[in-house]
Amino acid sequence: MTPAPSENALSADELQDVWPILSRDERAEGFQLLPPEDADDFFLALSTRDQAELLMELPEAARRRWVRLLPPDDAADLVQELDAEDRVHVIDFLDPITRREVSALLAYEEDEAGGLMSPRFARVRPEMTVDEAIAYLRRQARRRLETIYYVYVLDAEQRLQGVVSFRELFASPGDRSMREVMETELVTVPEHMDQETVSLILAESDLLAVPVLDGQGRMKGIVTVDDIVDVVQEEATEDIQKAGGMEALDAPYFDVGIAAMVRKRGVWLVVLFIGEMLTATAMAHFQDEIARAVLLATFVPLMISSGGNTGSQASTLVIRAMALGEVRLRDWWRVVRREFVTGLLLGLILATIGFIRILVWQSVGHMYGPHYLLVALTVALSLVGIVLWGTVTGSALPLVLSRLGLDPANSSAPFVATLVDVTGLIIYFTIAQILLGGTLL
Amino acid sequence: MTPAPSENALSADELQDVWPILSRDERAEGFQLLPPEDADDFFLALSTRDQAELLMELPEAARRRWVRLLPPDDAADLVQELDAEDRVHVIDFLDPITRREVSALLAYEEDEAGGLMSPRFARVRPEMTVDEAIAYLRRQARRRLETIYYVYVLDAEQRLQGVVSFRELFASPGDRSMREVMETELVTVPEHMDQETVSLILAESDLLAVPVLDGQGRMKGIVTVDDIVDVVQEEATEDIQKAGGMEALDAPYFDVGIAAMVRKRGVWLVVLFIGEMLTATAMAHFQDEIARAVLLATFVPLMISSGGNTGSQASTLVIRAMALGEVRLRDWWRVVRREFVTGLLLGLILATIGFIRILVWQSVGHMYGPHYLLVALTVALSLVGIVLWGTVTGSALPLVLSRLGLDPANSSAPFVATLVDVTGLIIYFTIAQILLGGTLL
Repeated sequence: MTPAPSENALSADELQDVWPILSRDERAEGFQLLPPEDADDFFLALSTRDQAELLMELPEAARRRWVRLLPPDDAADLVQELDAEDRVHVIDFLDPITRREVSALLAYEEDEAGGLMSPRFARVRPEMTVDEAIAYLRRQARRRLETIYYVYVLDAEQRLQGVVSFRELFASPGDRSMREVMETELVTVPEHMDQETVSLILAESDLLAVPVLDGQGRMKGIVTVDDIVDVVQEEATEDIQKAGGMEALDAPYFDVGIAAMVRKRGVWLVVLFIGEMLTATAMAHFQDEIARAVLLATFVPLMISSGGNTGSQASTLVIRAMALGEVRLRDWWRVVRREFVTGLLLGLILATIGFIRILVWQSVGHMYGPHYLLVALTVALSLVGIVLWGTVTGSALPLVLSRLGLDPANSSAPFVATLVDVTGLIIYFTIAQILLGGTLL
Repeated sequence: MTPAPSENALSADELQDVWPILSRDERAEGFQLLPPEDADDFFLALSTRDQAELLMELPEAARRRWVRLLPPDDAADLVQELDAEDRVHVIDFLDPITRREVSALLAYEEDEAGGLMSPRFARVRPEMTVDEAIAYLRRQARRRLETIYYVYVLDAEQRLQGVVSFRELFASPGDRSMREVMETELVTVPEHMDQETVSLILAESDLLAVPVLDGQGRMKGIVTVDDIVDVVQEEATEDIQKAGGMEALDAPYFDVGIAAMVRKRGVWLVVLFIGEMLTATAMAHFQDEIARAVLLATFVPLMISSGGNTGSQASTLVIRAMALGEVRLRDWWRVVRREFVTGLLLGLILATIGFIRILVWQSVGHMYGPHYLLVALTVALSLVGIVLWGTVTGSALPLVLSRLGLDPANSSAPFVATLVDVTGLIIYFTIAQILLGGTLL
């Protein structure tokens, strides 16, 4: 039963629908006209960036109310979106305990375990009984806990001793002590661990949350699996965009202005374009051959695209396998060996098709002249060489980048293709010189 | 304190390290020699495929023990990996309740909500008090619950009435009824919803689990966020591999044999190769122009790679934005308009660089002859056209595929590049004919 909306008011669903195309003050107006019982959920569902922008458009009293709605980790994320002066202002709105928690979280980078964690976890002492722990947590629940699937057992110095799942806590006899029921083989992460590694550990552990410890083994917070879903999506998006040959956008598609879009894509395009200019130099080097046999030039796009396609397959595979931890740097020799065999087989398949294609066209239109068999052989042999080279280069490049301390995701399909194009031309024309010298050339 | 290992025994960590390179019976042997207290965790951490393979190598008594360790949803996944005869055999090992649950789960596809869900959720009746619910759940916990973060309130017909989070349950006065404390604005998914959509809904809702309902509104199970992490990783991997121009591997890199690898990559390669043959036809069509001005041929790789690179950027961006729900089909016009402007700007940038490059080379080596300005203009204008065309095609193609009911991820970088290559050649040589006709041509 929602109350009858005022004349201009949109429902939460309607507002969400038009949100991307509204200006800042239209957003603030629409938000303030929302039915009060929907506004909380609407605000919490916004991205951190949108929350921050909206907040700065609202009157002071409203601002205080909405900031206080956020749990400390989300409040910290929001504060990080703001200018220095707005930050102080917004932190002042918080109640003293949350303010202390937010300030502690702000000391971390956004993309490390500490920046991702919530400081509000369920903690008990080892000597409590199960009944005592349940009663204690019931008293604590409303005020001090964000999520409770695990109860962490800490000693007096806040060092983590063990963990009890809620299921275990519920299922244990009430008079057992926490020390007796807790699990002591623990998966933990250090506070400065990179979020991508945290997400791999959490995904592999099949846990719902992982405790974050400082250098002295004191527990600072928990990273929960729902935060990790966002990290995994975000990292996958970055990797996919890099694989497409551009910088990661770091924002939804429609939120990126044209200028930023051109910059994010243009930088790599220009780098690739300048690299690709080497193909013009290589082609110019073989100008005489082309002039004597224009026929050769007609196969150039086919040759270089075959190298590019196989190279982009190989690099994509290896980059993803490295991101998932399936392939590590020390596996490089196994990777290259596998890709050598795969590349050879793929090259033979394409070479066969290319060879047959020339024979068929020749029998139909005689377009390749008296030396058509040599031409077909040149094309076929070049394809084997180029595909093999593309596959091995494409698979090795992410490993080389990683060895150099760079992100393997940068060896994108277009990057590999550009690299393989120049060498592909050299392979092709060299084989042509050898096989066709004295006849066509 | 692990017991002293027997002579050949590996520790769990050691076994995990060498696992990928072991044969099936070596795996079974290593597994059976594990210290008993590590074997459970080791088995549960294996992929479903590895669990199934290992199981079939173990003696019957061991098999029963390990199958019974699995919760019903994991048992159902494992059963789906087996041959028809092994299936019946393994299902017979289960206790009667689990067997019924597994059989119910087997009715679903692996990649829909029903195939992902666990049937073991915490359920209470609306008239129970908070104290009664807690006491009831404590009795149920050991046997019948896999995970408990939400308590679902069902009526006598198993229809979902509301949900109470554990935090809420703990924080509520003990004498309130479940009906009073439950949340009735519910996020639910139908049993046959695709897992990718389920993961988007769950990620957006910031819930830890989402209830799965059948057509009559009866609750069948929950999909939890930890299952979703795997789905998100899996779907991202599929999308990335398709973006690289191949079929999704559906298995870790080193687990795919060479034959399967060649097949998964070869099919697309052959399709692209045959498509790319059109470039040879197009080039042959312009043979006379090339013979008169070999110079023109030297720019061909640069031209087509520029179209390919910009096309692959645009398609990658749009595919990912569609997968994340940022771009929907009905946004097509906004996308194409944006990409038109972006493509035009990117084209102008590359054209400027190309134009300057020719002027510089000319002033150094006079390699472009007396008509170098016209050549530079041809290259620059062609770049604008090709980049614009590549960008618009690359961004529109995923939308077109989606409109046709196909997976947009299939408009991979190599696919777009191939499409743009042929048209790029036509654009380039047509502009050359117009600008250079009467001078060079």
